[in-house]
Amino acid sequence: MNIQTVKAHCDIPCGIYDPITAQIAALSVIRMVDLLEGLEKADTLNYENSLSRYIDVKETETEKVKHEIRIIWGDFIKPPMVEKYPEIHSLVHNIMALGSTNRQHVSRDKAMELLEAVNDFAQIFWEIKGVETKKIKAHYLPSEEIVVPA
Amino acid sequence: MNIQTVKAHCDIPCGIYDPITAQIAALSVIRMVDLLEGLEKADTLNYENSLSRYIDVKETETEKVKHEIRIIWGDFIKPPMVEKYPEIHSLVHNIMALGSTNRQHVSRDKAMELLEAVNDFAQIFWEIKGVETKKIKAHYLPSEEIVVPA
Amino acid sequence: MNIQTVKAHCDIPCGIYDPITAQIAALSVIRMVDLLEGLEKADTLNYENSLSRYIDVKETETEKVKHEIRIIWGDFIKPPMVEKYPEIHSLVHNIMALGSTNRQHVSRDKAMELLEAVNDFAQIFWEIKGVETKKIKAHYLPSEEIVVPA
Amino acid sequence: MNIQTVKAHCDIPCGIYDPITAQIAALSVIRMVDLLEGLEKADTLNYENSLSRYIDVKETETEKVKHEIRIIWGDFIKPPMVEKYPEIHSLVHNIMALGSTNRQHVSRDKAMELLEAVNDFAQIFWEIKGVETKKIKAHYLPSEEIVVPA
Amino acid sequence: MNIQTVKAHCDIPCGIYDPITAQIAALSVIRMVDLLEGLEKADTLNYENSLSRYIDVKETETEKVKHEIRIIWGDFIKPPMVEKYPEIHSLVHNIMALGSTNRQHVSRDKAMELLEAVNDFAQIFWEIKGVETKKIKAHYLPSEEIVVPA
Amino acid sequence: MNIQTVKAHCDIPCGIYDPITAQIAALSVIRMVDLLEGLEKADTLNYENSLSRYIDVKETETEKVKHEIRIIWGDFIKPPMVEKYPEIHSLVHNIMALGSTNRQHVSRDKAMELLEAVNDFAQIFWEIKGVETKKIKAHYLPSEEIVVPA
Repeated sequence: MNIQTVKAHCDIPCGIYDPITAQIAALSVIRMVDLLEGLEKADTLNYENSLSRYIDVKETETEKVKHEIRIIWGDFIKPPMVEKYPEIHSLVHNIMALGSTNRQHVSRDKAMELLEAVNDFAQIFWEIKGVETKKIKAHYLPSEEIVVPA
Repeated sequence: MNIQTVKAHCDIPCGIYDPITAQIAALSVIRMVDLLEGLEKADTLNYENSLSRYIDVKETETEKVKHEIRIIWGDFIKPPMVEKYPEIHSLVHNIMALGSTNRQHVSRDKAMELLEAVNDFAQIFWEIKGVETKKIKAHYLPSEEIVVPA
Repeated sequence: MNIQTVKAHCDIPCGIYDPITAQIAALSVIRMVDLLEGLEKADTLNYENSLSRYIDVKETETEKVKHEIRIIWGDFIKPPMVEKYPEIHSLVHNIMALGSTNRQHVSRDKAMELLEAVNDFAQIFWEIKGVETKKIKAHYLPSEEIVVPA
Repeated sequence: MNIQTVKAHCDIPCGIYDPITAQIAALSVIRMVDLLEGLEKADTLNYENSLSRYIDVKETETEKVKHEIRIIWGDFIKPPMVEKYPEIHSLVHNIMALGSTNRQHVSRDKAMELLEAVNDFAQIFWEIKGVETKKIKAHYLPSEEIVVPA
Repeated sequence: MNIQTVKAHCDIPCGIYDPITAQIAALSVIRMVDLLEGLEKADTLNYENSLSRYIDVKETETEKVKHEIRIIWGDFIKPPMVEKYPEIHSLVHNIMALGSTNRQHVSRDKAMELLEAVNDFAQIFWEIKGVETKKIKAHYLPSEEIVVPA
Repeated sequence: MNIQTVKAHCDIPCGIYDPITAQIAALSVIRMVDLLEGLEKADTLNYENSLSRYIDVKETETEKVKHEIRIIWGDFIKPPMVEKYPEIHSLVHNIMALGSTNRQHVSRDKAMELLEAVNDFAQIFWEIKGVETKKIKAHYLPSEEIVVPA
């Protein structure tokens, strides 16, 4: 059951879909895990404050990944594309599962798996659009690789 | 691209999933179409006010259907269930497409198709849980049929 | 003072009111209390992660109960019904107070009181609509009783 | 049924309640009605744009009034105060009804009634707190009177 | 990157701007710091519950300060006013920085600095509008001074 | 006065700032203007539905531009950078003003001005980070130029 329902404008349909939003969110999940794992335990309010905030951001960014991917999958991907990329349903379903895993745990491996699955999705997305891609390191921490237009 | 990202609490995982929320939202979409089609055109602010509000609610309720179904599909449905119900990915993908159609149009037929697809999803959901179902008429307008536990 | 203001669509007025949404939210509050009380204390990030998330969901689900009941009370309940059910104002006021209590504490007794008050409200609601009710156990944990149409 | 659920922080309980937020929202409802009634009809996108935006703001500000008053009533008002101000339940119930009316119509009279009811609530609120009040004209359009601490 | 995007209605433009909303939010930040610092450490769920909730409210109220000030600065303050109050850009930029500081720490001094900066902004705002001001103690805890119309 | 307050996670501070989100939102504003101007007037509910939805998305995407730029300006830009880029306060203030203009009007010229101002901001942002940029055409309609890392 959801807490809020949101508007996904690309139902317009306006054609403005870009997996970068989901990729930035996936990077943010990794970043939160790194911050959580790097946090020095202390018996202070500042420690509790940081702990609580990092967990909360991990939560919202993971949900953002799931929401953004759902929009592109549900609105942009049409049955003929599914025929060409029959694995896309399982890939998206797996992104949802990885999202849940990352909400329920603090694990860099699982956060990396989420980013990789989102990159796989981005790869297919840009292929469908006929746009060549490259892998670059993100220009900010956690500096992991993302698939973007070449 | 989304306007807001939301928290879907059942990632807890708490096990509290119920398609009734999506079904009520689908009924609301039909109701908005009925209200829109029944609205007598007039050159008044009250007319414009109702028109704008019904469209806005249709928009948010349709998005709610998509969001709720995504949560149950992404969090509750596991790979072994997909093997047993291999049509579930296409069914969910179709609910997303019907959602878009209903946002882009004012059509009772399309709104009914959305409710039916959501009922099909509810049927599978309760089967997986081993709960028998029945079809009842909703206790409020538009009084269409929904699949609920017997 | 509120953080966000929300749209309650049934001001349309569309007549689609259903206390089940508040009842599911009340069940979720109980479930969070159960999860919190069952959580084994550990000096790990996963423990902190779960603790923080269960509290956050308890918070939002309790607020959801209050919000949903306010909508039905404020939009559906009219002065003539208040004459017939003069206790309804106090009942709703008490649901608000119980909501606050549940946000401020982790207490199964208080969470059960909230569900019972919401069930009382549901009973009156369905009576007003002339729909017979029954008590069933929820089809998911915490498996407590809810009042639903027969 | 609600679109979003929100957090009302004063459940903390922190004691920071101030009806001014509801009063500003009620003034905004009146302002939107004035803007809507003053809008010169034209066959242009700018006209449609303004029409749609004013209605949308009227909607959200009215909901804000209802939400803010619900919070103070539900969290700050305790049973002993209800004994002293037995009319408070009806007053709040009436604010909810006036809110619905203002969402469903474009009417300056109804918007003024909403502000007046909110002022009545503010009067009781400050009396309970032992703070003297005065009536002042708002320092911005629509320049209607609000009850504030002296 | 944001979690949600919100509507700031005064883009209408309706002329209803009031720094009191930001001031109440700044008072709430101080109040949360006071509650956090006054919280007696205990190995109980109720302790964890309060800790988590106070941090969360501090977070949202600080963001509210930033959002409200951005709206008035961005929508109400026009280039000619900037000429007259050339310090306003730095003042607003500093409010944003103080907001971040208060989210990242639990510090009464920093929370007081935030309130003072918001009061400075309120002072300029009312001067521009030609409204005389006074300093009063807030009618609720933390009872700190705010600048309001005389 | 705002409708909702939102969490801007980069207050963490996590260092994940990327103007692409604001740029995509600015492209979306242009796209909505194009769709609005291309909409053939008709006396149908589908026409009213599209009109209302395009305006609503224009509204939220414009607000998103303002919100995203505020976050980077308020959280990432520090006083020493302001010394090096003394025009940045005016640039950001102008983006806010252009945002308001675009909410209040349907104008391709004004939407283009908004995108250009956001591109100017992106240019400064990447310069501060020491990342070279290039201008590319967006890979989707409205296919206007955006400044991105080379």
